[in-house]
Amino acid sequence: MLRRVDFEERDATDPLAELRSRFTLPEGVIYLDGNSLGPLPRHVPDVIDDAVRRQWGSDLIRSWNDNAWWEMPVRVGARIASLIGVPEDSVVVGDTTSVALFKAASAARRLRPDRRVILTDSGNFPTDLYVLSSVAEASGATLEIVEPERVGERIDSDVAVMALTHVDYRTGRRHAMEELTAAAQAEGALVVWDLCHSAGAMSLDLSTADMAVGCGYKYLNGGPGAPAFAYIHPRHQEVFVNPIAGWWGHADPFAMEPGFRPAGGVRRALVGTQPILAMVALEAALDAFEGVDMAALRQKSELLVAGFVDLVDERLEGFEVVTPRQASERGSHVSVAHPEAAGIMAALIERGVIGDVRPPNLLRFGLAPLYSRHVEVWDAVEAIGGVMESEAWKRVVTKHGPVT
Amino acid sequence: MLRRVDFEERDATDPLAELRSRFTLPEGVIYLDGNSLGPLPRHVPDVIDDAVRRQWGSDLIRSWNDNAWWEMPVRVGARIASLIGVPEDSVVVGDTTSVALFKAASAARRLRPDRRVILTDSGNFPTDLYVLSSVAEASGATLEIVEPERVGERIDSDVAVMALTHVDYRTGRRHAMEELTAAAQAEGALVVWDLCHSAGAMSLDLSTADMAVGCGYKYLNGGPGAPAFAYIHPRHQEVFVNPIAGWWGHADPFAMEPGFRPAGGVRRALVGTQPILAMVALEAALDAFEGVDMAALRQKSELLVAGFVDLVDERLEGFEVVTPRQASERGSHVSVAHPEAAGIMAALIERGVIGDVRPPNLLRFGLAPLYSRHVEVWDAVEAIGGVMESEAWKRVVTKHGPVT
Repeated sequence: MLRRVDFEERDATDPLAELRSRFTLPEGVIYLDGNSLGPLPRHVPDVIDDAVRRQWGSDLIRSWNDNAWWEMPVRVGARIASLIGVPEDSVVVGDTTSVALFKAASAARRLRPDRRVILTDSGNFPTDLYVLSSVAEASGATLEIVEPERVGERIDSDVAVMALTHVDYRTGRRHAMEELTAAAQAEGALVVWDLCHSAGAMSLDLSTADMAVGCGYKYLNGGPGAPAFAYIHPRHQEVFVNPIAGWWGHADPFAMEPGFRPAGGVRRALVGTQPILAMVALEAALDAFEGVDMAALRQKSELLVAGFVDLVDERLEGFEVVTPRQASERGSHVSVAHPEAAGIMAALIERGVIGDVRPPNLLRFGLAPLYSRHVEVWDAVEAIGGVMESEAWKRVVTKHGPVT
Repeated sequence: MLRRVDFEERDATDPLAELRSRFTLPEGVIYLDGNSLGPLPRHVPDVIDDAVRRQWGSDLIRSWNDNAWWEMPVRVGARIASLIGVPEDSVVVGDTTSVALFKAASAARRLRPDRRVILTDSGNFPTDLYVLSSVAEASGATLEIVEPERVGERIDSDVAVMALTHVDYRTGRRHAMEELTAAAQAEGALVVWDLCHSAGAMSLDLSTADMAVGCGYKYLNGGPGAPAFAYIHPRHQEVFVNPIAGWWGHADPFAMEPGFRPAGGVRRALVGTQPILAMVALEAALDAFEGVDMAALRQKSELLVAGFVDLVDERLEGFEVVTPRQASERGSHVSVAHPEAAGIMAALIERGVIGDVRPPNLLRFGLAPLYSRHVEVWDAVEAIGGVMESEAWKRVVTKHGPVT
């Protein structure tokens, strides 16, 4: 049987333990929802304040040059590139993840116009399914949605684009990215990965993928609604057609030409003027990865996740771990099913243990190796036990906000 | 002949003069580029700091409900609605202007599928032309680009969508919005207006237009790259098909359904998770319009612009005012042509008079009635005279940033 002291011991020997000091985390809270919104890196408020008061307030329009705002999409993109294992000039930051996926999937589809199918799986995040249905409809393709475990067998030469999310937002199940990429490419399909639940939580190697997108506000800690990133493999950059031609993707934006000429390289994936204050927050947040060994980060993530799963197995009744049992098959969050998930989570949040729920019956706990402590895993599972024993979940008034 | 004291007198009797105190403007600067980037409203830094430290840092994920982040696109949209003369539940804020135009123009095109033409004019901002070319290509339409003064005569029953920018970013020429809207609608076309250079600078009545978009960072002062807004006339809201289906436009986003069901009303124009920090800045910036009579604002704008034009005529040689002579035909900036525009502007900026240039040879001066002073108009024209007399423009080393 595991004891709290075992988790204290894991923290004591955690080579990444001091990274937590890079974040501001409120007292009395065990924050296990960084897979939805990463916490505030400690230095970010001052960086934003400088951007607001000095760069916007004093330097005004000159900041586009003098504070290099104009270069932010490629500069921040280069930093994210290093986290996902691709060349630094193959990633740009901008727009939302949904719009980024629209651009990537549309462009990929256009490179395989004679094929019939856009392939995805039913575990994909809903907005991905919606976006892909828009792409399919606009391009005369059929969107095929198969069970996650059936993707491999569905790949054939009908597939124009395979678009998958690496780590399932509900279950935490992780696709075998390299294998599926190779299988689809062997059939001539292009592959677009959504890295929302993996970028920043593990070492990644997207170098064989055709395109990828991901969000800035989960494990990258870029702030609420931080801009998304988009990766285009160098071999596609000169043939990538952005479905939304815009001036930031033009070869010479300030020539203000009437006709569109796409920029060389990944810059052509840009469209319009980006929210600079949000970009500033994301750029600064990436400092939290400075000097971090991503393999060590993944190792810690695996230990956190394993600890949580082990404790649920040992100490809780009536909860089913739906996250896969193999470390190689999961991401950095744990999902457990319980018929009273919503009430239990509300009671946990009242007690300062913050996770979230996903329909129909999942409690979701994100374990972020940059700042989560092993002992928090113990305390969170203890809190679940306490909520069940006291039946506190029956007495909670669930808030009626839209986000649940 | 006008004298400086005449402009001092205009300031002394300006009923809106005290509004300038709502902004932070650097000492020693005459800022005439608010038509590109509005200045920092005085209270905005504290609002942003609260959003960063308390809402993000302490409240974390709970802020989506507790600080009503989720409602920002419609809440901020409602405030912009009041500035453009439309019902408060017909505007949302989100994405970039380019993406907003893509959505609106695509949806409008889809409502007129059997017509051949998307009509615009050569004075439109380049990104609008690029976006419209994408919409035309994707939908099998022809993009027709005519001279601004020929738009009216080109309207016929071939036109599916007429998409124009109200105020020309170069010349300041303003389209007769109501007349053109009526003429196009009489032929059965839908009309999409881009209000980038008019929203926040004048009273507007978009109530007859079909759709409109605009940016948050010019006369709305929402900060660099602030999110855009999109207006959909109530009669189109239930038939509006977003070309990018996304979860923020879903009828029940947190049901996380595999199939897309559009939200009722204007919310369906949303796509993905928006940059909240940028939205916070924009929302707070709109406070600067609190209690402002938009008709009085326009009146001041006209007097500022007329003053500038009069002084160029009286005091400068070799400069051609390209902005129309009739107040009813112009926006809130003045453009003057000179073959040495780039060098002259660089020399002016060295002297603290900040405008910008647009190809091929235009100096552009934005006069923002919320904060510009009449005497600044005098001083700016004096500075131009000084730069010419001293030939300072010949000695300026133009900065080699991308934004000119």
